[in-house]
Amino acid sequence: MSDALQPTAAVLIIGNEILSGKTQDANLQFLGVELARLGITLVEARVVRDDRATIAHHVNELRSLYSYVFTTGGIGPTHDDITAEAVAYAFGSELVLDEEAVGRLQRHGRALNEARLKMARIPAGATLIDNPVSHAPGFRLDNVFVFAGIPRIAAAMFESAARELARGSTIHSASLDVFCKEGDIAAPLAAIAAAHPEVEIGSYPFSRDGRFGANLVVRGTDAARVEEVLGEISRALAGIDIEASPVR
Amino acid sequence: MSDALQPTAAVLIIGNEILSGKTQDANLQFLGVELARLGITLVEARVVRDDRATIAHHVNELRSLYSYVFTTGGIGPTHDDITAEAVAYAFGSELVLDEEAVGRLQRHGRALNEARLKMARIPAGATLIDNPVSHAPGFRLDNVFVFAGIPRIAAAMFESAARELARGSTIHSASLDVFCKEGDIAAPLAAIAAAHPEVEIGSYPFSRDGRFGANLVVRGTDAARVEEVLGEISRALAGIDIEASPVR
Repeated sequence: MSDALQPTAAVLIIGNEILSGKTQDANLQFLGVELARLGITLVEARVVRDDRATIAHHVNELRSLYSYVFTTGGIGPTHDDITAEAVAYAFGSELVLDEEAVGRLQRHGRALNEARLKMARIPAGATLIDNPVSHAPGFRLDNVFVFAGIPRIAAAMFESAARELARGSTIHSASLDVFCKEGDIAAPLAAIAAAHPEVEIGSYPFSRDGRFGANLVVRGTDAARVEEVLGEISRALAGIDIEASPVR
Repeated sequence: MSDALQPTAAVLIIGNEILSGKTQDANLQFLGVELARLGITLVEARVVRDDRATIAHHVNELRSLYSYVFTTGGIGPTHDDITAEAVAYAFGSELVLDEEAVGRLQRHGRALNEARLKMARIPAGATLIDNPVSHAPGFRLDNVFVFAGIPRIAAAMFESAARELARGSTIHSASLDVFCKEGDIAAPLAAIAAAHPEVEIGSYPFSRDGRFGANLVVRGTDAARVEEVLGEISRALAGIDIEASPVR
């Protein structure tokens, strides 16, 4: 896929609860879909524990590699919420009490105690990211965007932050389901993939209602090409039971 | 949590479909739960694209850092399945046709074409991991375990591989839900966490049926200590509406 001009991104998911299996992450899928829509290539994601040095190490590595880094989790008021502190540490910055953040918490929250004030301490030089759901803001420092972990809040923060992002060409995708085993279609599919480096072709096997199948996905920045290549795949697999899905 | 003696692990999730948001990963949560049961600390996870050099880079970095690496995805017959090739490249090894793997595919599959034979090519020196679901095996090379991406098959392969893993002390957890805002309980919770470094205490906010709450989780290798600390938390928060969950 010719995406050399697209901005790039990484997602850093912060939280022991994801690695213990206690919580199923839902933010990566959301961010993957939204970033594709904005033409930003999500290159990788990492899930790390609530440890200051660890978080800082990954923030620094990822922010040097990609246009944007989006972190989720660890910005609440409890002792295990250490993302702001870790991001400050990564940048060699310090946490400062942000008056605007204090004001938002005062207008919307309960009495401000020391734990709640923690949510208003952000690294020096950072700017706030609006949180229309629960009002404790996220923040942006350079190319690093720090979001809450709760999916509804992370989504709202992404929406707030999206207007600050450079955009590439939207990545379109179209897919069809074929009801056969992947081994039966691998050769023609490989030939089509080799002939069309301008799109990305993926094959994702499934078993549904006792039938084997594969979801064949074409992705690219040119919606018409995506449709054409999907048509080519469909014709090459003539004779196989196929269900087409519309372009998304 | 005093887990310095526990084996460690990383999960490497391979597949563009996870990063595009097309597919919701389900293997990380499964592996997190199972590894905790075996007393293996899952330290981090990464999600990367179907790119040989990228996969090889992360395999090499993770296998040097942790006792075990578990990869998921990319071992099917289609052109975008490049995990075996990438792992061989990471180890400076070559793909060889494994006669035992060929036999398993012959006994259980359709006619062997070139695409299906690809699933029997594993890095020289690797050993097979049984796949009782669809028979195309995974493989182990040194401390790297290569599983399929389909959750049912990844789970079966983990079960096959588990007997080869060194075990630590099972990580127990107990939790309770408190119906209040996290900011109201952060101070007593922090004090208890500071007094009990032998366990890990996490607070995970939620909103349910219009009520705010937090799921408080205690984890550790000593089940009795875990229960005791949870009891201490429960007493410290007397007066708040609490629902206890049993030790898992």
